[in-house]
Amino acid sequence: MQPIVAHRSGIDNSDQGEHVEQPKYLDDFQPGQVFRSPGSLTVHSADIKAFAAQFDPQPFHLDEAAAQQTFFKGLAASGWHTAALTMRLLVDTLNIEGGLIGAGFDEFRWPRPTRPGDTLRLDAEVLGIKTSQSKPLQGFLHHRVTTYNQHDEPVLIMTGNLLVPRRSQG
Amino acid sequence: MQPIVAHRSGIDNSDQGEHVEQPKYLDDFQPGQVFRSPGSLTVHSADIKAFAAQFDPQPFHLDEAAAQQTFFKGLAASGWHTAALTMRLLVDTLNIEGGLIGAGFDEFRWPRPTRPGDTLRLDAEVLGIKTSQSKPLQGFLHHRVTTYNQHDEPVLIMTGNLLVPRRSQG
Repeated sequence: MQPIVAHRSGIDNSDQGEHVEQPKYLDDFQPGQVFRSPGSLTVHSADIKAFAAQFDPQPFHLDEAAAQQTFFKGLAASGWHTAALTMRLLVDTLNIEGGLIGAGFDEFRWPRPTRPGDTLRLDAEVLGIKTSQSKPLQGFLHHRVTTYNQHDEPVLIMTGNLLVPRRSQG
Repeated sequence: MQPIVAHRSGIDNSDQGEHVEQPKYLDDFQPGQVFRSPGSLTVHSADIKAFAAQFDPQPFHLDEAAAQQTFFKGLAASGWHTAALTMRLLVDTLNIEGGLIGAGFDEFRWPRPTRPGDTLRLDAEVLGIKTSQSKPLQGFLHHRVTTYNQHDEPVLIMTGNLLVPRRSQG
């Protein structure tokens, strides 16, 4: 059974400056910073169908011929597959102390579908920092993640918050 | 290789009134309607690890012992796994002409993680109907999906829009 994540290329953390650095704390981020995924992921039709069979079994995600007759006019990845692939890219992009802990989104949309053969990459932009009043050793990183296909067209835009620890001030 | 969707139970569309009916158009929905998933999905630790290995390879999703030392204090499903399982339940819950075509969310949060052994179900509530000015044969179904665990605690809350066709008025 083939892996459904899609086919990774160019992801080699050993030569990525961000990743040989220490994990970042909230204090290390500033609004305006943009982190670009070090590699990309190419999605093939078999990946799209395998994900859909498990999580989103609808004709436009499962069968090329049936998909032609739908809104998508051809096979398209489940939006949740695009989201899962985005997370896979994000894990390689942001190195945060304690890991990537999502606190949700206030904007989440798919401007266009991911198609068979598309190669995805992302940019993660820091929009702001919110420290916690009640828990001074943590806060929120407000950020926007935009996932692009190989034509530099966005396929997913998510704006939300990550829970990130602060450095001890002690 | 075992399926990673989780283990379905109780989903049998043959005796579900909603599903033997014809697919619904936008005109068939009214604010206040609540659609409950006909079945549920139970998630096991192997499912959690398999999904995470492909899409969200972080210690709290991959290894019980390592997870104990993290924010989650034990193995937790990737939030994207919870989202994908929610979509799997939603496909069995809403029968819409042309399929479920998501137009994005304006609220998306995980109030708590999905844990090994959790059994998920959902409610989908119709919040409103927005017809399109420019495309009179379609519109948006504004809705809130809440996914619950077996303790009736929400694990995912999503508020957003589905693109839904209108009946021809001809």
